[in-house]
Amino acid sequence: MDQRPIGVFDSGLGGLTAVAELTRLLPGEDIIYFGDTGRVPYGGRSRETLLKYARQDVAFLRTFDLKAIVIACGTVSTTAMEELAAESPIPIVGVVEPAARQAAQCTKNGKIGLIGTQASIRSRAYERCIARINPEVQVLAQACPLLVPLVENGRIHPGDVVVETVCAEYLQPLREAGVDTLVLGCTHYPLLASVIGRFMGPEVALVSAGAEGARAAAGLLRTSGALAGDRTAGHCRYFVSDSVSGFSQLASLFLQRDVSAAVTQIDISLY
Amino acid sequence: MDQRPIGVFDSGLGGLTAVAELTRLLPGEDIIYFGDTGRVPYGGRSRETLLKYARQDVAFLRTFDLKAIVIACGTVSTTAMEELAAESPIPIVGVVEPAARQAAQCTKNGKIGLIGTQASIRSRAYERCIARINPEVQVLAQACPLLVPLVENGRIHPGDVVVETVCAEYLQPLREAGVDTLVLGCTHYPLLASVIGRFMGPEVALVSAGAEGARAAAGLLRTSGALAGDRTAGHCRYFVSDSVSGFSQLASLFLQRDVSAAVTQIDISLY
Repeated sequence: MDQRPIGVFDSGLGGLTAVAELTRLLPGEDIIYFGDTGRVPYGGRSRETLLKYARQDVAFLRTFDLKAIVIACGTVSTTAMEELAAESPIPIVGVVEPAARQAAQCTKNGKIGLIGTQASIRSRAYERCIARINPEVQVLAQACPLLVPLVENGRIHPGDVVVETVCAEYLQPLREAGVDTLVLGCTHYPLLASVIGRFMGPEVALVSAGAEGARAAAGLLRTSGALAGDRTAGHCRYFVSDSVSGFSQLASLFLQRDVSAAVTQIDISLY
Repeated sequence: MDQRPIGVFDSGLGGLTAVAELTRLLPGEDIIYFGDTGRVPYGGRSRETLLKYARQDVAFLRTFDLKAIVIACGTVSTTAMEELAAESPIPIVGVVEPAARQAAQCTKNGKIGLIGTQASIRSRAYERCIARINPEVQVLAQACPLLVPLVENGRIHPGDVVVETVCAEYLQPLREAGVDTLVLGCTHYPLLASVIGRFMGPEVALVSAGAEGARAAAGLLRTSGALAGDRTAGHCRYFVSDSVSGFSQLASLFLQRDVSAAVTQIDISLY
């Protein structure tokens, strides 16, 4: 038993999809969330800038006495995972390895599609990871730079010609190639699952990287005996690097509940 | 005569539309440009975060011996202009006052449309400025949060259903209200001038805030005798807070020439 909280971070709001899954799996756990809303989005930034930002995010979270950290950000997971894990005395869980395992298990025809930010796709982290799990599997990757802005502007609904056109452009080559599994490699994308699922068709399995990361963290804590034990409900605290009000409003879209009382602004450039 | 360079800054690339205009008007001037590409976009951030970032941008530029600074960013001009001007010993020129004057001169029916980022529209800076110039003029303002991501992804061409649909949604209320003048209140928007102009119709005058800011700066230097004098071509140096390569590629879209040799990365959090 370990009563310490779990740290979770993302560039902004997307990581809340992982928080939702973590809370569902482990309702008794306390969570400290950091969203770097003053510097979001991460997906178009260079590797060195991402590494700097990610190290600051971890340094801030580690001002709390945590038992583990979940990188609920596809871009950081693909770009800075090795450095962060090597530098951390507590376990760090990213989304790439768990999502790659799940996708490799799902596929029947050996063709996996992958969508993510520009930095995530550029990293080729999924290709390397899937090749280690099953070298026979083919990965077709597609960067989707407009999906995060669309989600952050609430353009997530089927029938919206803008989001449907953008998704169709990105996904058409993957559909044509006949992938039977699609990794949603950015934690914003589950909000587009109905638009994406409709375009790809019901026979294509969608793997949410954020949810897989949360499942992997839950499994790790369970097997290492580090769960918080039988508490009815853990507490979540949220920290952001821009104003509280902007975050609180959009967070309701992700979590479907009001979190405004638990949100605090911090200056991430000090870490 | 004053041989010192002019400083120009923006959240990212948009301010290059002002640089292009400044170079056209005053080809002999040296320019130091800073684009905060490590923290772009500014348009959705809170006032306090914008003020902090803008102060750092100015502090970096002032490490050079400048004769004036142009805020080639609609969001900073609407949100932090007064503070920056009050704190600066050298002249600071924003885009709001010059664009408001031009729009007030252009309009015949007294109805001006304004498009900008969320922070720009929230500030109501244009409404205040135009009311001082001509209290009879009506301003219809529309925040356009998706236009910067669309421009930065090269979605600027007429016939692109995504950018045309998004522009139509934003602009429809302004067209219906019968504005005869439209302020492009963000320095990214001139790249969408043909899409916007087509939708609004040829009778609507488009006022580019970035170009008006550049014209105002040129006028200020001319009347105060601070031009660099008869040189054939000034030098432009570019500084960015993320990697040089990403900037250099997109900068060609704005400036229509290769600038890669003149771009340097700096750490803006140190200023």
